[in-house]
Amino acid sequence: MFTHSKKLQYKAQPEKADPVMARRLQDILGGQWGEMTGMVSYLYQGWNATGYDQYKDLLLDTGTEEIGHVEMIATMVTRLLRGASTEEQEKFYNSGDPALQAAMNGTDPQQAVVNGLGAGPTDANGNPWTAAYAGASGNLLADMRYNVVRESMARVSVTRLYHMTEDKGVRDMLSYLMGRETQHQLQFLQAAEELEEKYGVVVPHGTKDLENQEVSHTLYSFSDGDASRAVVEGKTARDGEPFKYHDGPLISDDLQDVGKTIKEMHNTEGQEENKNN
Amino acid sequence: MFTHSKKLQYKAQPEKADPVMARRLQDILGGQWGEMTGMVSYLYQGWNATGYDQYKDLLLDTGTEEIGHVEMIATMVTRLLRGASTEEQEKFYNSGDPALQAAMNGTDPQQAVVNGLGAGPTDANGNPWTAAYAGASGNLLADMRYNVVRESMARVSVTRLYHMTEDKGVRDMLSYLMGRETQHQLQFLQAAEELEEKYGVVVPHGTKDLENQEVSHTLYSFSDGDASRAVVEGKTARDGEPFKYHDGPLISDDLQDVGKTIKEMHNTEGQEENKNN
Amino acid sequence: MFTHSKKLQYKAQPEKADPVMARRLQDILGGQWGEMTGMVSYLYQGWNATGYDQYKDLLLDTGTEEIGHVEMIATMVTRLLRGASTEEQEKFYNSGDPALQAAMNGTDPQQAVVNGLGAGPTDANGNPWTAAYAGASGNLLADMRYNVVRESMARVSVTRLYHMTEDKGVRDMLSYLMGRETQHQLQFLQAAEELEEKYGVVVPHGTKDLENQEVSHTLYSFSDGDASRAVVEGKTARDGEPFKYHDGPLISDDLQDVGKTIKEMHNTEGQEENKNN
Amino acid sequence: MFTHSKKLQYKAQPEKADPVMARRLQDILGGQWGEMTGMVSYLYQGWNATGYDQYKDLLLDTGTEEIGHVEMIATMVTRLLRGASTEEQEKFYNSGDPALQAAMNGTDPQQAVVNGLGAGPTDANGNPWTAAYAGASGNLLADMRYNVVRESMARVSVTRLYHMTEDKGVRDMLSYLMGRETQHQLQFLQAAEELEEKYGVVVPHGTKDLENQEVSHTLYSFSDGDASRAVVEGKTARDGEPFKYHDGPLISDDLQDVGKTIKEMHNTEGQEENKNN
Amino acid sequence: MFTHSKKLQYKAQPEKADPVMARRLQDILGGQWGEMTGMVSYLYQGWNATGYDQYKDLLLDTGTEEIGHVEMIATMVTRLLRGASTEEQEKFYNSGDPALQAAMNGTDPQQAVVNGLGAGPTDANGNPWTAAYAGASGNLLADMRYNVVRESMARVSVTRLYHMTEDKGVRDMLSYLMGRETQHQLQFLQAAEELEEKYGVVVPHGTKDLENQEVSHTLYSFSDGDASRAVVEGKTARDGEPFKYHDGPLISDDLQDVGKTIKEMHNTEGQEENKNN
Amino acid sequence: MFTHSKKLQYKAQPEKADPVMARRLQDILGGQWGEMTGMVSYLYQGWNATGYDQYKDLLLDTGTEEIGHVEMIATMVTRLLRGASTEEQEKFYNSGDPALQAAMNGTDPQQAVVNGLGAGPTDANGNPWTAAYAGASGNLLADMRYNVVRESMARVSVTRLYHMTEDKGVRDMLSYLMGRETQHQLQFLQAAEELEEKYGVVVPHGTKDLENQEVSHTLYSFSDGDASRAVVEGKTARDGEPFKYHDGPLISDDLQDVGKTIKEMHNTEGQEENKNN
Repeated sequence: MFTHSKKLQYKAQPEKADPVMARRLQDILGGQWGEMTGMVSYLYQGWNATGYDQYKDLLLDTGTEEIGHVEMIATMVTRLLRGASTEEQEKFYNSGDPALQAAMNGTDPQQAVVNGLGAGPTDANGNPWTAAYAGASGNLLADMRYNVVRESMARVSVTRLYHMTEDKGVRDMLSYLMGRETQHQLQFLQAAEELEEKYGVVVPHGTKDLENQEVSHTLYSFSDGDASRAVVEGKTARDGEPFKYHDGPLISDDLQDVGKTIKEMHNTEGQEENKNN
Repeated sequence: MFTHSKKLQYKAQPEKADPVMARRLQDILGGQWGEMTGMVSYLYQGWNATGYDQYKDLLLDTGTEEIGHVEMIATMVTRLLRGASTEEQEKFYNSGDPALQAAMNGTDPQQAVVNGLGAGPTDANGNPWTAAYAGASGNLLADMRYNVVRESMARVSVTRLYHMTEDKGVRDMLSYLMGRETQHQLQFLQAAEELEEKYGVVVPHGTKDLENQEVSHTLYSFSDGDASRAVVEGKTARDGEPFKYHDGPLISDDLQDVGKTIKEMHNTEGQEENKNN
Repeated sequence: MFTHSKKLQYKAQPEKADPVMARRLQDILGGQWGEMTGMVSYLYQGWNATGYDQYKDLLLDTGTEEIGHVEMIATMVTRLLRGASTEEQEKFYNSGDPALQAAMNGTDPQQAVVNGLGAGPTDANGNPWTAAYAGASGNLLADMRYNVVRESMARVSVTRLYHMTEDKGVRDMLSYLMGRETQHQLQFLQAAEELEEKYGVVVPHGTKDLENQEVSHTLYSFSDGDASRAVVEGKTARDGEPFKYHDGPLISDDLQDVGKTIKEMHNTEGQEENKNN
Repeated sequence: MFTHSKKLQYKAQPEKADPVMARRLQDILGGQWGEMTGMVSYLYQGWNATGYDQYKDLLLDTGTEEIGHVEMIATMVTRLLRGASTEEQEKFYNSGDPALQAAMNGTDPQQAVVNGLGAGPTDANGNPWTAAYAGASGNLLADMRYNVVRESMARVSVTRLYHMTEDKGVRDMLSYLMGRETQHQLQFLQAAEELEEKYGVVVPHGTKDLENQEVSHTLYSFSDGDASRAVVEGKTARDGEPFKYHDGPLISDDLQDVGKTIKEMHNTEGQEENKNN
Repeated sequence: MFTHSKKLQYKAQPEKADPVMARRLQDILGGQWGEMTGMVSYLYQGWNATGYDQYKDLLLDTGTEEIGHVEMIATMVTRLLRGASTEEQEKFYNSGDPALQAAMNGTDPQQAVVNGLGAGPTDANGNPWTAAYAGASGNLLADMRYNVVRESMARVSVTRLYHMTEDKGVRDMLSYLMGRETQHQLQFLQAAEELEEKYGVVVPHGTKDLENQEVSHTLYSFSDGDASRAVVEGKTARDGEPFKYHDGPLISDDLQDVGKTIKEMHNTEGQEENKNN
Repeated sequence: MFTHSKKLQYKAQPEKADPVMARRLQDILGGQWGEMTGMVSYLYQGWNATGYDQYKDLLLDTGTEEIGHVEMIATMVTRLLRGASTEEQEKFYNSGDPALQAAMNGTDPQQAVVNGLGAGPTDANGNPWTAAYAGASGNLLADMRYNVVRESMARVSVTRLYHMTEDKGVRDMLSYLMGRETQHQLQFLQAAEELEEKYGVVVPHGTKDLENQEVSHTLYSFSDGDASRAVVEGKTARDGEPFKYHDGPLISDDLQDVGKTIKEMHNTEGQEENKNN
């Protein structure tokens, strides 16, 4: 059960309106690695978790924090859209001035036409957020690793955006998000490390006997050159076994073919010839 | 530039037809973490990479290997669909026998109606594969971490599927895939570790001065209880700084509000009342 | 800013495991009109709202409540998947028993293979939730009407699901959701009515002078028969003007054609003939 | 069964080419609330309706009218793209002139590259139209309410677009659409009102005994402050019962937890520790 | 402008209810090659066409016919869902009888929960129809070829479905659709042939001087073996030039690399090492 | 099984950076008819094919070639993004200069924010590539026809893009692609023709007895005028039978209606009136 305070987690006050930046910021809101992905992934992971209270709580703490980040960025986006005086807004949206029109060409038309100069749950190219981005596997180590990636990707985007504006208010919020994404990377790395200590580094654990061990520690070269050899040669993998390198691809004797199927499938090939029917 | 051999990387020969398993296997082919996601992600990462030949080559080696995994699983799926005698197939697809009909209810109707009893680039619920699953950030450490996740998630799914069949041929191929996904987890962990050695664990590196350092090492509790405290208290984060725990949420004084906008947006609120117009 | 309690809003305890019902319930979680749609729509509407504190608060109250509904249904789904003894689960998922296999054919394979017997942010056919479902227009009356629809559609689905199970625990939760969706329909109808009082029933208001008034109160018949005449004839529209009925379609003199375009578009038609090039 | 006349319902003649406006207009064609959504929703609703000839006919009349609106807007979009002389078009698309290039940056590149300077079934950000937008519930009152929303949202977008152009021809068509959307809002409100008269305002009707009546008329506060109290306090809901307000959230004693599942799911938590395997 | 008659183009009367077949038929309604794809593609092609009245009219005739096919199949689907007596339907949907439950597992749960036992604009796996399936290029020959494919793919699916039912009513409608898809294949082949006569077979025409003619008539072998040689060797291509075969891949001297980019992109590679920052 | 060479199939060297062109080129990479569609379609078709070695090999040759085209275009896109000096890139991305800002408005923000100035598997409007574009029917003739369309549509897009740049390096690569798409159109036309020779032109073949032959060779007019008559009148269809023309639509006596369904569906219509419940 959740409750809400109308105070933001951190201030989201731009110095002035900037509709082009409002478009770009959508990517850390509704993009593949945006805050909505964090929110949905961590909450579902937490709800499905069992057995380790500290990790379940960590996921729910952070998932709940992310709802507030969604709120914060949505607020910033809308303020960047509406933050000019009425006169300036009208001039911007209705004027035929070529320079303003050129600026307007960098905005998201749907932020105006669909959302009434407001944020929407979409990315910087207007793709609606989709749960196809989210991850919640039921395996805690896999999930913690996913979360490290989510925070890494998000922090990369946030940092890139930082350089694309001089607005101190926008930069201040992005600086805050960078700080939080540092903590989140580190906490999820911490949890992953503890789980690796317990269960080993290969996910899922306890399955060594099921796998084909002849191919489980060898890098095969499928591309010309052997530069990748340097990644593994003479090194011990994180699970304690030595890496091997094989200069060339894996290949079996099984020819890629598949049987014919029944005539009711009407797959042309191999069926009786019949020109007139 | 790529070339192809008609020999599979590893044999994909089921003992007998099993159209229900053919549906389930689609998930490791065209699902969120399936082989198509590996193929597209690693190739784009490799193509965009520069500066470290060994990692670029590692990505292209593995991306190319994954095209072969797509081929191998697609072949297995189609053989599971077509691997019965013509008589058995006709009985299965055309009979009114309730038991067979019940079995058929577990199949993917599109594998028959759309693909002519063949594999398609979709998941176990028929969702077409989408590049929204793929990751290629331009930041090598973020990408390597993503790859560890892709291999972890894929290996979890493969292992779950292993238990859902008794077919020795299917299990043999899944066992092979588990082995490869062990290697891929380990090699990408190795690369990630080396990059962390060079640049530190927080992605992207070199940005400490840009971030809000007051919030960069503290776990805030947004959920009741303090079980998550155990994850961080008294511990040192992977970047060498101590973690802190704060019993309660982050909250600012910035009230969530946004300005009104121009009348041309026709946002109801705060505009002149006008019942008849 | 949001906080979370680990207590559910309402109990979500099934009497026993039922993986087929677990699949069906996904529709009110991650379907077009499911709780995720309510959560995202009301929160974005609330964040973008301004000028009427009571409506902004209403949206944020209800949007926050819906996050808890997402949690509650996700919990129910997972309990329906995991609620049998280990022995029964193993028998269900691993047995070759035809009756159990037939039952398993009604389940969502991704709830097992992807989520480890847990809920995911998808619908009953496995489609990932998409923000394409959500609505947040910036116009309060349009949004309130949208919300009435979301609650109506959701309550229809919940009620249909109620009849598909005899499980008292599942029915109890569905009964609770029906109650809340009654309140939500009524509160959003109330808000809509108040806004109509202020601004009139046609959205957006204050635009009568902009529209073509010759066609603004007439029902034209585009289908044979005139049964629809009964909806309008002799009646006064909610804006106080009389409805008209016109027996036949609207039609102008403007022929549907479009000009040719430049040769660089290579649109076949009307270009120079050239067989050999 | 449908037939077609090449005369448009209403003229769609712009004064001059305007490729940027051609992009924006896509939103009322193939966007979430565009004409394709109206067309598909009303037709499916009408085809599934039974029992009330007047409403079935109303849906089919309006759904058929909307096919004509799709045609009309598609025609306008293409004319806005092709409406300049060949010389002007060539200058626009092929010139290196920075001002023209800046203008071109506001256009949809796919209208040229994919459609040959023509309209496509997409929105203003190039998202293909999806049936995920459409609604057809089988419940007439829910459907009529959906239709009121579709027309309200569409009219908001149309009106916003009206202000973004000075072209009299474009404005004339938008003015016409506003008129039709007035009629459609009013006719669907009329139908909804009549159905509410018959069945009551809560959808679906006749289900009071199934629902949890303790929570069916109370607004719970999940956000700080109590501004929303004003929406309900002392008021009677549309179904004749009094609203209640509760200052605080709903909360049960059911702790959010879920059982462990079988080892074959390989969910890390709570399983045997095993570092080396 | 369109008008509608409530008489279907062809009768769509099943002998009896069959909810499993109702699910499968969704594929020729809202699937990739279903009637909605035909309807939308041909209409947009027709609206964008200019210069040849006979082809524009052909596209609009057939596009309009397809709206009626959508109607016809949607009607059949709904009749297959509702065509049993009330008692039988209630037994089917509410009974705990294992055999009925097994049958129900082959149905689409959304046809009940979302559409009230009605058709929806989705495919046999519940994917909503998307305009990503449609084609309208502005080039008439490319479009005519697309249309031949649409009709070929649709007829393959229809024929496969024909074998999956013994219901004479369903077969009668499918037989009708097969007939229409024969005509449509033939008419679009006819149009394509006439356009090829005029402009040559390579689309778009008149561009020979722009292309690299050294590679325009050679089949390169990128897969082992040379079985494909038989397709081209000693044959003359449809444009009158001889085919060539080259035993091996095309390969240039251009190594796949890309430059580094600016530090503000924070792409790890090649940047200054910095462990602590 | 696949292997990779780091040499491109053909050089992809632009003269200079052009981020706007880098956006546009995404359409032939990850768009509906882009190289990813070719790659995935031809490979799946080839893997599912059986019975004709020459066609299976042709599909695998060309599918493998297309992976190299994906690589080549991705390389070109990234070089167009990164091909300026560091100083110029920094000026472009970070400067406040209005002219540069106007240019930047024509770029894809995700190429910077998400991919670090690199190519992604998306189209020119940022839509992620989806397997919904791909075709693999199991019927070889249908597939060969699909492939002709893929190559025709791709060549149309490539040619349009050719005119949108003066860069000799970009034009050279596009010229090469045009050449390959000529060959691919011709080779797939050749294969289609041979299959038509064997099986007849109507897909799937051998089904004449199943279809309704009364409607299989008649063009019905559903749009006003009879311009389409010229396409068929007096002509013989490709299957040797004469075309017929019918001046008016097909229409049956079957009224579009569907039965009521059970009360548990809660479809409003026809149910007992009940205002208070």
